Amino acid sequence: MVTIIGLGISSGEHLTLEGLRLLKSCDVIFAPRGALPEPLLRLAADFRDTSAFYHQPETERLLTEAVLAEARSRSVAVCTVGHPLIFDKPVAALKEACRRAGVPCKVLPGVSAVDAVLCELGFAADQEGFQARQAAHIPGTKIDASLPLFVFRCNALAAKAGLAGRFVAAVTKAYPPGHYASFVETAHVPRQVALVDSFPLKDLEKKLASAPAEATLFIPPLKKKKK
Amino acid sequence: MVTIIGLGISSGEHLTLEGLRLLKSCDVIFAPRGALPEPLLRLAADFRDTSAFYHQPETERLLTEAVLAEARSRSVAVCTVGHPLIFDKPVAALKEACRRAGVPCKVLPGVSAVDAVLCELGFAADQEGFQARQAAHIPGTKIDASLPLFVFRCNALAAKAGLAGRFVAAVTKAYPPGHYASFVETAHVPRQVALVDSFPLKDLEKKLASAPAEATLFIPPLKKKKK
Repeated sequence: MVTIIGLGISSGEHLTLEGLRLLKSCDVIFAPRGALPEPLLRLAADFRDTSAFYHQPETERLLTEAVLAEARSRSVAVCTVGHPLIFDKPVAALKEACRRAGVPCKVLPGVSAVDAVLCELGFAADQEGFQARQAAHIPGTKIDASLPLFVFRCNALAAKAGLAGRFVAAVTKAYPPGHYASFVETAHVPRQVALVDSFPLKDLEKKLASAPAEATLFIPPLKKKKK
Repeated sequence: MVTIIGLGISSGEHLTLEGLRLLKSCDVIFAPRGALPEPLLRLAADFRDTSAFYHQPETERLLTEAVLAEARSRSVAVCTVGHPLIFDKPVAALKEACRRAGVPCKVLPGVSAVDAVLCELGFAADQEGFQARQAAHIPGTKIDASLPLFVFRCNALAAKAGLAGRFVAAVTKAYPPGHYASFVETAHVPRQVALVDSFPLKDLEKKLASAPAEATLFIPPLKKKKK
């Protein structure tokens, strides 16, 4: 039995009561060291640090094999930063591997980077709604500038030649150069204090080059023209 | 001092450790009765039931006045179902009223309906991203069918003549009639067991008429054509 638990963004502070109850009842906890205070990691008899898995190309295979080796005979909790099903590819792969192997797998919701960034910015998504996108998927698609936009994984833009330039072109085409955006550094990494850097979009190219690796880009909606 | 706490969707199960710590330290708790188990409501000396406020037109004024009357001299926790800043207009109004009155106000993130619906459906938003919209705002805008779509407040479509018809027209224009969607009843109301009703979009008009009042409509993305 595998239960995947979203820890939220801020080291252990966003763990839910449901997640805590589950950690207390399982045999093995897989989690990146530092994502939870040590006493919570020691709630189960066994703790396995997954942070090493997350910084190499074979994350999915390594995590899946290590978890499945335990899950046939013991109850396993797999902890991830943020929400397990939002922009966490290894978790999606693990879930699918459990299905194929016939191992029961449940996913508990957690506070996502979207949830945390809204609070850091004090922005209420109570009108039309919002959209959350991966940076690498923005070039070649149309941005709906009437909705608040969260952009994740800006750090992945550097992996492919020309991608960052096409990203900047797509964003600056959708908004006027004086429209303000913010890089918010709460996403994916546990932190005590958030960093918020706001700037006009004409500076996006420069800001992108120096943005913290795990920062989320937030662009508020364009105001509607009065009819 | 006012702290606004998102309780998540499932009665008290999604309360975060941060939220629990805050509830223990405040003087007054405002919350809808039933949104938390009774022992949690009694963590503060005073409990005020806000559920009556939420079912009348003056929700914002009533909640704001009741909270501000306490917040000048005591520490107040205001609890909401889901995430406080996602589709909760009274909370946004309260936050703004605190700012105008010079009362410090902090918002803690919580598990949103988006977070909970992803887990109910086992859908991983790990590719392009996703969008969350209010039903009443969909007619007259373009739907990006390449992103997973969450539609909230379908129950508000009945408030205006012809709105439901225009909503159905906009959705069925964006997807083929055989594309499957689901109504998921976890949003906004604490429940033990979620209801998931999946159907082809050609049945949307009929399903909309009988959908549970607080259900979220989820439409998975169209598969991309191979280039």
